[in-house]
Amino acid sequence: MTTTDGILEWGPDADADPTTLTYTFGGVAPAVTVRPGQIVRTWTMDAFGGRLTSQDDLASQVCDPRLLNPQTGPFFVEGARPGDTLAVHFISIEPRKTRGFSSTVPFFGSLTSTPQTATLQPALLERTWVYELDLADRVVRYAARDTDFTAALPLDPMHGTVGVAPPLGEARSSLTPGDWGGNMDTPEMRSGVTCYLQVNVPGALFSLGDGHARQGEGETCGVAVECEMDTVFILDRLVGRPCPWPRLEDDHFIMTAGSARPLEDAFRIAHQQMVLWVAELTGQSVIDAYQYVTQVALTPIANVVDTNYTVVCKVAKSYLPGCVAMGGAHEALRRQGRSWAG
Amino acid sequence: MTTTDGILEWGPDADADPTTLTYTFGGVAPAVTVRPGQIVRTWTMDAFGGRLTSQDDLASQVCDPRLLNPQTGPFFVEGARPGDTLAVHFISIEPRKTRGFSSTVPFFGSLTSTPQTATLQPALLERTWVYELDLADRVVRYAARDTDFTAALPLDPMHGTVGVAPPLGEARSSLTPGDWGGNMDTPEMRSGVTCYLQVNVPGALFSLGDGHARQGEGETCGVAVECEMDTVFILDRLVGRPCPWPRLEDDHFIMTAGSARPLEDAFRIAHQQMVLWVAELTGQSVIDAYQYVTQVALTPIANVVDTNYTVVCKVAKSYLPGCVAMGGAHEALRRQGRSWAG
Amino acid sequence: MTTTDGILEWGPDADADPTTLTYTFGGVAPAVTVRPGQIVRTWTMDAFGGRLTSQDDLASQVCDPRLLNPQTGPFFVEGARPGDTLAVHFISIEPRKTRGFSSTVPFFGSLTSTPQTATLQPALLERTWVYELDLADRVVRYAARDTDFTAALPLDPMHGTVGVAPPLGEARSSLTPGDWGGNMDTPEMRSGVTCYLQVNVPGALFSLGDGHARQGEGETCGVAVECEMDTVFILDRLVGRPCPWPRLEDDHFIMTAGSARPLEDAFRIAHQQMVLWVAELTGQSVIDAYQYVTQVALTPIANVVDTNYTVVCKVAKSYLPGCVAMGGAHEALRRQGRSWAG
Amino acid sequence: MTTTDGILEWGPDADADPTTLTYTFGGVAPAVTVRPGQIVRTWTMDAFGGRLTSQDDLASQVCDPRLLNPQTGPFFVEGARPGDTLAVHFISIEPRKTRGFSSTVPFFGSLTSTPQTATLQPALLERTWVYELDLADRVVRYAARDTDFTAALPLDPMHGTVGVAPPLGEARSSLTPGDWGGNMDTPEMRSGVTCYLQVNVPGALFSLGDGHARQGEGETCGVAVECEMDTVFILDRLVGRPCPWPRLEDDHFIMTAGSARPLEDAFRIAHQQMVLWVAELTGQSVIDAYQYVTQVALTPIANVVDTNYTVVCKVAKSYLPGCVAMGGAHEALRRQGRSWAG
Repeated sequence: MTTTDGILEWGPDADADPTTLTYTFGGVAPAVTVRPGQIVRTWTMDAFGGRLTSQDDLASQVCDPRLLNPQTGPFFVEGARPGDTLAVHFISIEPRKTRGFSSTVPFFGSLTSTPQTATLQPALLERTWVYELDLADRVVRYAARDTDFTAALPLDPMHGTVGVAPPLGEARSSLTPGDWGGNMDTPEMRSGVTCYLQVNVPGALFSLGDGHARQGEGETCGVAVECEMDTVFILDRLVGRPCPWPRLEDDHFIMTAGSARPLEDAFRIAHQQMVLWVAELTGQSVIDAYQYVTQVALTPIANVVDTNYTVVCKVAKSYLPGCVAMGGAHEALRRQGRSWAG
Repeated sequence: MTTTDGILEWGPDADADPTTLTYTFGGVAPAVTVRPGQIVRTWTMDAFGGRLTSQDDLASQVCDPRLLNPQTGPFFVEGARPGDTLAVHFISIEPRKTRGFSSTVPFFGSLTSTPQTATLQPALLERTWVYELDLADRVVRYAARDTDFTAALPLDPMHGTVGVAPPLGEARSSLTPGDWGGNMDTPEMRSGVTCYLQVNVPGALFSLGDGHARQGEGETCGVAVECEMDTVFILDRLVGRPCPWPRLEDDHFIMTAGSARPLEDAFRIAHQQMVLWVAELTGQSVIDAYQYVTQVALTPIANVVDTNYTVVCKVAKSYLPGCVAMGGAHEALRRQGRSWAG
Repeated sequence: MTTTDGILEWGPDADADPTTLTYTFGGVAPAVTVRPGQIVRTWTMDAFGGRLTSQDDLASQVCDPRLLNPQTGPFFVEGARPGDTLAVHFISIEPRKTRGFSSTVPFFGSLTSTPQTATLQPALLERTWVYELDLADRVVRYAARDTDFTAALPLDPMHGTVGVAPPLGEARSSLTPGDWGGNMDTPEMRSGVTCYLQVNVPGALFSLGDGHARQGEGETCGVAVECEMDTVFILDRLVGRPCPWPRLEDDHFIMTAGSARPLEDAFRIAHQQMVLWVAELTGQSVIDAYQYVTQVALTPIANVVDTNYTVVCKVAKSYLPGCVAMGGAHEALRRQGRSWAG
Repeated sequence: MTTTDGILEWGPDADADPTTLTYTFGGVAPAVTVRPGQIVRTWTMDAFGGRLTSQDDLASQVCDPRLLNPQTGPFFVEGARPGDTLAVHFISIEPRKTRGFSSTVPFFGSLTSTPQTATLQPALLERTWVYELDLADRVVRYAARDTDFTAALPLDPMHGTVGVAPPLGEARSSLTPGDWGGNMDTPEMRSGVTCYLQVNVPGALFSLGDGHARQGEGETCGVAVECEMDTVFILDRLVGRPCPWPRLEDDHFIMTAGSARPLEDAFRIAHQQMVLWVAELTGQSVIDAYQYVTQVALTPIANVVDTNYTVVCKVAKSYLPGCVAMGGAHEALRRQGRSWAG
């Protein structure tokens, strides 16, 4: 699995018995070990486990609800210990195939009642949409089912699910986001971003999956343009650095992600974490940082469809001159990634 | 562990290494096997794991946050299979000792910000209260800390936490309630009640704990009158009977319990489940049952402090003449329990 | 309107143009003036404005959405000034007629999507149920529409809507509850209770309506057993006494009512107000009162269907020995009411 | 007030008795009449009513809570009738002065408990920040209070509050957003945008205020860079065109704004309205439009601090080729505005 140039190449066996794949964060033995600084080439299955093959397949008929959103992993990170933070930098996220799938799923999504927002109403129509992924033109091609409306939308590949084993001995479904990351479903999780996750168990037990060729903010119907991904990442462990909730960083923004219900709690988490982070980075008092974040934050909703909802808070690095976040991990990993990519 | 009269006597070893106890529903190997119909005499530790010994002990100082709310179990129920429902009847729930403890815990409770309802405010004062449990007079004795106000409140022992292994391969902290039961914190879980829980894994993996000498509805500050319990129960498996969310039944009421956030979702779950149940029991159409439940339901809040909130919906059996709930399991178990108790 | 024995008899003219009735708290000129201590005999229309006359009438067809829930009032209370609190004691609440009506209303109720909890699902079936109100046997008679199930439920008359003009110059629909009272829909608002409401404008501008022959806790489908009421009340003003949120008191309980969304905020309001009230009544510190309320509160949900949701917190007077709430207004008004009733 | 070139120049008298200003949507007599198509030059006071003059002024000391967020208006729009929609195009929004103010206000904001999210914790520190508005360099200058951190942030003037009289005879505080518009606090309400609001009463009774020199998404602490504004707008009435919730349109996006609690309901409203709008514009079925919006929506949070929370849903016009929204009102008003501006 480790090549002669030290690159780790590993991913799930698509032909394997689906019940042997990984569907939780925590509760699963590590599949492979990775060293900090090592380049990892991997791949991920789509959230349907590859069971949708045409617009005639309906998820409720062809998918086993216990086998949704299989993850690639867990990766055991050498030396990662509780109290450390894992930094994962995405060098490349590219669709493996030229088709993506989306669907409406009964009692799932933001504009329907659900098992939790329970009503007595019937489910919405279940339907599958097939997208062509044009990797040359960098677009995904949408076609309406009931009319001849079509559109070409920018390809913007991302991972909906990125996380580690949670604290308190819990094992959480890959359908759920929380302080361990998981199914955050934010389009910010694209190539070029570094994701920070606090380590709760030895080796961190990092997994990823749920590739989206693109996604709107909020993932309204609950399903993005789902596809298999070829992904290259590099990770590091930040020893003794706390990170109570997931953070993201790219060349232009630092970001926090809160996942909770109701949605205002996800907002509160993301903004509280950003205020404390900005205070630390700029040396401002917390009350000053509260004021400052109030005027500079961008706040896109990530998802309002999963078992917890996710809100992202972003602050532009241009408003934080001279500040180095998380010990410069993003810059360092990005440099290593580019150097590898040549 | 099984006595000559066939009674199962088993419980945790109070002197054991606390890290060996059970803190999750799911993710733990069964500790002991129980047969349907067998009387079980057991005991439970308090939610603090016995670490509070006087009003000078503060939970945040003497308790390890990973070792809160230890559970007695899991009990492997012979023959229980996914798709069945477990019926657990509580014959007796009695405090083991004559003292109970309550406390305020930083950033925990309904009238404080929390890690999820995150603010920038400081925590409330942390404090411990010691209650005397007068088992003869059947009262718990409260004494204010800052004034000489005292009160004797009715003893009303119950279990805050009763549950099975959750679905989807999850392991959930004993601090959390959900469709597997868990930390519902309803005072309805007292002696004489039967609790119904859907089986998700072979053997159900039933656990219980979090004894309360008494509790108000809502568990406002997050901590009831916590105490160790001696508990006698008897259980049965209802083959092939679904029960998507926990149900309770005593001699006078049938009850449903929904656990979710926000609190209105817990209400929706409890009332949707009750409407469907009443429709089934009375033969009414769903829309008629919706109307009927609207006029007859009682709806006490159980908790607004745990990681999910819980609402209970109650309908008096007097409004359901001739109806037999859950195949008569409550009546049958209650009869067996009384017969045993002599 | 004032009789020779000093009783004020006044109510809306049922034959009047419906557009001349009162549909808001605030924003309406006083209809009549009442003196503190005066007995008031009045009556209220039902929430449908009397437009439902048989099970064949559907609310969405026969009711104008701008003319729902007409109120009796506003009563201008002599001498009431902002900063005072109004105490209204209900001496008697009795159905005026022998029929009540309930219904499902499209996109209204707790087990359906609504204009705020917006989905793309169709509305539930709209239907009307007619109840016989047997005032001799003190029952309301229910009959299912789709089967022959029938039931006789205890008559328990109450007002869903009791309130004053809100602060900040607002006028609020009689469909909405808040700190001014309004459409709280708690079954606790029955004969024998005293309701306390803070005065926001000169004369308080008290109104009441929305009689229910009975109601379950939560008002699941959004509509109780709606009926016209004959109501006798007596009120007083408590000079300079604050009451930020509505309070209720009967012979056995003191109660607070919080109305907000999400439902946990309604809970937080009701319990915060109860903690502060119990601290004041018992002389306990706030943190001790927080502990005490945690163990003694009852917490029935009032409604999860109106534009704000309402939670009631109750503490038994037996747990507050020697305490006199609100200057003894309940006792005094109850005595005057009984004396009048002979 | 109407100049010889037909322009309407009108605004509040800054020297007037503050109690004579407008603090509600609805419940106030029209101040001035405007014709569709007429250019209106007006000005607005800041949300503090001009009471903050230095960093030593604290809002809780110098402001009367009944006199916050004074509005300019109401404008009676000739010919506007219930069932019509008002289209208001902002030609120009410019600070009147070179200073703006922000503050933390006790028990107000997203990272503190509030009167609704009630806790027993103390308030955060109250503090005032003064911003220099550099209209030449188009920046607002921030200076921390506790350290020497400073920053120059892009000037991006907007109105927090834009609305009409609400339905159902209500009068709503200018602190509240809802289906009438009001205090939505979205930074999208800048120069160049057209805002659509459904007319509920004859003349619509349009008002605006709450100018912000800039604001982050979410308005975290509850207060943006508040300032007086000089504003030029032009409006039109769209006869018989429904618009159940506020919509915005600029040259690049169509947008919907939902305001409710909990925050997920604001999301649901905004996305449901967008799905229905996109279906109408593109001719797609609703289920196809649901799928399409899922992949193309942007969803910035507007505020999580007001008495209702606001979420905006945006869809780029580039994804709606050939579609003309709201009868082309934005294009037409923009053309008239530019023609006037020369």
